[in-house]
Amino acid sequence: MDRKLYHVLGAKQFDRAELERLFAASREMEDVVAAGGDRRLAGRIMTTLFFEASTRTRLSFESAMHRLGGSVIGTENAAQFSSAIKGETLEDTIRIISGYSDVIVMRHTEIGSAKRAAAVTGVPVINAGDGAGEHPTQALLDAYTINKEFGRIDGLKIAMVGDLAYGRTVHSLSYMLANYQDVMIYYIAPENVQIPANVKRYMDGKGIRYQETHDLNAVAGSVDVVYQTRIQKERFPSLEEYEKASGKYIIDGELLSRMRKEAIVLHPLPRAGEIAEEVDADPRAAYFRQAHNGLYIRMALIAKCLGVAD
Amino acid sequence: MDRKLYHVLGAKQFDRAELERLFAASREMEDVVAAGGDRRLAGRIMTTLFFEASTRTRLSFESAMHRLGGSVIGTENAAQFSSAIKGETLEDTIRIISGYSDVIVMRHTEIGSAKRAAAVTGVPVINAGDGAGEHPTQALLDAYTINKEFGRIDGLKIAMVGDLAYGRTVHSLSYMLANYQDVMIYYIAPENVQIPANVKRYMDGKGIRYQETHDLNAVAGSVDVVYQTRIQKERFPSLEEYEKASGKYIIDGELLSRMRKEAIVLHPLPRAGEIAEEVDADPRAAYFRQAHNGLYIRMALIAKCLGVAD
Amino acid sequence: MDRKLYHVLGAKQFDRAELERLFAASREMEDVVAAGGDRRLAGRIMTTLFFEASTRTRLSFESAMHRLGGSVIGTENAAQFSSAIKGETLEDTIRIISGYSDVIVMRHTEIGSAKRAAAVTGVPVINAGDGAGEHPTQALLDAYTINKEFGRIDGLKIAMVGDLAYGRTVHSLSYMLANYQDVMIYYIAPENVQIPANVKRYMDGKGIRYQETHDLNAVAGSVDVVYQTRIQKERFPSLEEYEKASGKYIIDGELLSRMRKEAIVLHPLPRAGEIAEEVDADPRAAYFRQAHNGLYIRMALIAKCLGVAD
Repeated sequence: MDRKLYHVLGAKQFDRAELERLFAASREMEDVVAAGGDRRLAGRIMTTLFFEASTRTRLSFESAMHRLGGSVIGTENAAQFSSAIKGETLEDTIRIISGYSDVIVMRHTEIGSAKRAAAVTGVPVINAGDGAGEHPTQALLDAYTINKEFGRIDGLKIAMVGDLAYGRTVHSLSYMLANYQDVMIYYIAPENVQIPANVKRYMDGKGIRYQETHDLNAVAGSVDVVYQTRIQKERFPSLEEYEKASGKYIIDGELLSRMRKEAIVLHPLPRAGEIAEEVDADPRAAYFRQAHNGLYIRMALIAKCLGVAD
Repeated sequence: MDRKLYHVLGAKQFDRAELERLFAASREMEDVVAAGGDRRLAGRIMTTLFFEASTRTRLSFESAMHRLGGSVIGTENAAQFSSAIKGETLEDTIRIISGYSDVIVMRHTEIGSAKRAAAVTGVPVINAGDGAGEHPTQALLDAYTINKEFGRIDGLKIAMVGDLAYGRTVHSLSYMLANYQDVMIYYIAPENVQIPANVKRYMDGKGIRYQETHDLNAVAGSVDVVYQTRIQKERFPSLEEYEKASGKYIIDGELLSRMRKEAIVLHPLPRAGEIAEEVDADPRAAYFRQAHNGLYIRMALIAKCLGVAD
Repeated sequence: MDRKLYHVLGAKQFDRAELERLFAASREMEDVVAAGGDRRLAGRIMTTLFFEASTRTRLSFESAMHRLGGSVIGTENAAQFSSAIKGETLEDTIRIISGYSDVIVMRHTEIGSAKRAAAVTGVPVINAGDGAGEHPTQALLDAYTINKEFGRIDGLKIAMVGDLAYGRTVHSLSYMLANYQDVMIYYIAPENVQIPANVKRYMDGKGIRYQETHDLNAVAGSVDVVYQTRIQKERFPSLEEYEKASGKYIIDGELLSRMRKEAIVLHPLPRAGEIAEEVDADPRAAYFRQAHNGLYIRMALIAKCLGVAD
């Protein structure tokens, strides 16, 4: 790995100073988009190399590149490269793709694959999700949204709700929040998908306060952020158990009525019933604003990777 | 739905004045393409959101956007977004995609989906086919071709041939032709795929003359346009019945010899035997010219949607 | 076929003078890329029409087009057009796509399909592989790499190793090498995948010396180039035989120690074990440089097809 390259591999690589620089750069990208984009990346090529389809994430990155005047090549069928087909290693694939592009955005099914890619290439790699591992640009847009909505992250009370075991976004967001002062996190999950021990150890090591609970109603009135997640059906031993768990934490008008007037509801999306549509019209429903923030964060990251950030 | 947005949702939204404006704009786009394209949409992004593959239609739209200098992101795997995978509604998908692009071209399997999309977005939506519903840009290019080939639509005799029940292009084209004077339509179909009652009621309401018949040979000598369509195998109860129906209306040299010297043959394509290849060399074979006209119509529509039409 | 169009259909179309022009143009493209690309193809559209997925080849062409400022539309699902789905002929598909683009890069499963495409279109066609037929741009990049690494092709000794029966790259490369003086080729293959008689007849007709052998070790010390290929598992009657054959010709540190200091190892990639990873660090391992050369060759070919080569 070229040590001078700026890769985006995992949430833990960002300290507070770097987050603040990125948030400032993302804020400027909002102005760039409002002005119709610019051409600072004209002639540069981004490859979106997706070994599994994630159309939303891919389109967000591609839009970001185009808004800065760059070009995009890519595939959602990158498994065509894989050992399943012709026996090629990920490393060989990356070595070759590196000759075609100036930055690689990669999504893969295996933990650690982004780091393996970065180790053999001369171009920056952005991790767009590596299996059950990391999805750092999602965590960045989550943190950016919180910071933008409140003007700060220090001192906030944040409830993370739903599948906290397999949902990688809550892990990555937790690591990022650990950079801030006086944050309080409530981990609210069904019995069988609670926050893992390694995340708790990390938060302990950073001195971050958190509490595990099953009672969303009890904390709804005191938190600033409810970060809802999708309960993934396939994780549960039976449909009955799944429905019990998923039905347990619904954000609806009733729950909204318990929340503070200044609080917000976030969700990495897509949702599948865990936020009722009646919530959408409430100004506290920030999840679509959150999704749109992904564009600005990704513009800032791509610009940084390609050395054209301000 | 933002009432000021110009969406392209269905054939009935176009009155004669609007059609004439669009045809004039399309005519100008022919000059733009001949001159190598222009850059009026530089910096603008189109999303092609195809929930079912329709490569030809998608490429036509993408070419149109590029000829005007714009950028394209998109997918033919949009079903990845769908409830089948993660339970997301079309509305949520559109809300998010709207943050990535300036215009959305959507193809979907369900009738009415384009209207549902338009209802929740702040960017223009172009319907590129919604199941058995509408495919307005195909109807526009059909009408544009007729107008271009004859210099008018008023007073023309048009035979629509083949599967008139399920073929949505003949419905949409009928609605569009209803804006013109003294048009006469012959609906020529096998017994089990005749023109539906609701289309006839619409034409009746507009005072358009039409005749249903099974005898293509009888009208071939008097019409200006033979609009042939593909008989879709999957609609028929048995292969035998399908072959009887599909074999019934073949445009070949023999039929061509009955047609007027100034008449033309159209087909939305792809064809599967219902126009013999021997017809291709005849100047009355206008179906490839028709396909190419789709580019100009789509350039005109995209420009209009993005407010840069002349 | 428009005789004035410059199509890229097969290896045999290139004589020595044309190869030298292309190599010179490719060499200039290296400078263009080093300078960040240029805009000579701004406004031009390339369609990548892939009837079977070949992500690497497609991305290489798309990168080439973008480096020259052009736009790209395309599909890896072109089989959606095919008779399997709606009964459309390749010729009809090409006639329509020709209206959307300035150059077509096509990959297809059937021998001769590129020629069929070129016969019905008014835009240049580049064959990116037609089944077991030709893959001329691979052969061009192979020959370009040899010429670049040695400063010449005349007089070189080249061993082609592996599946010489089904591997189309060794056929196309043989045809191209037949343009040069004093070339000596060693065809080294397992019993059941030896070089076909028609290739040998062609080389005989051109007066090219070659030798068929099973003993790579015996010639390794005297050749300038070892062109290794992948042994394709599916060609063999049993896994046991496949493993015997594939295990027979491994390029590893031991074989490298027998080779001349100035020799190089090439491979069209992907590899699947037939070149050990320990070889990668040796300066004679030229296969990644070879892969990157594909970009320059394709830039030169696209520029030539579109009439903007110097």
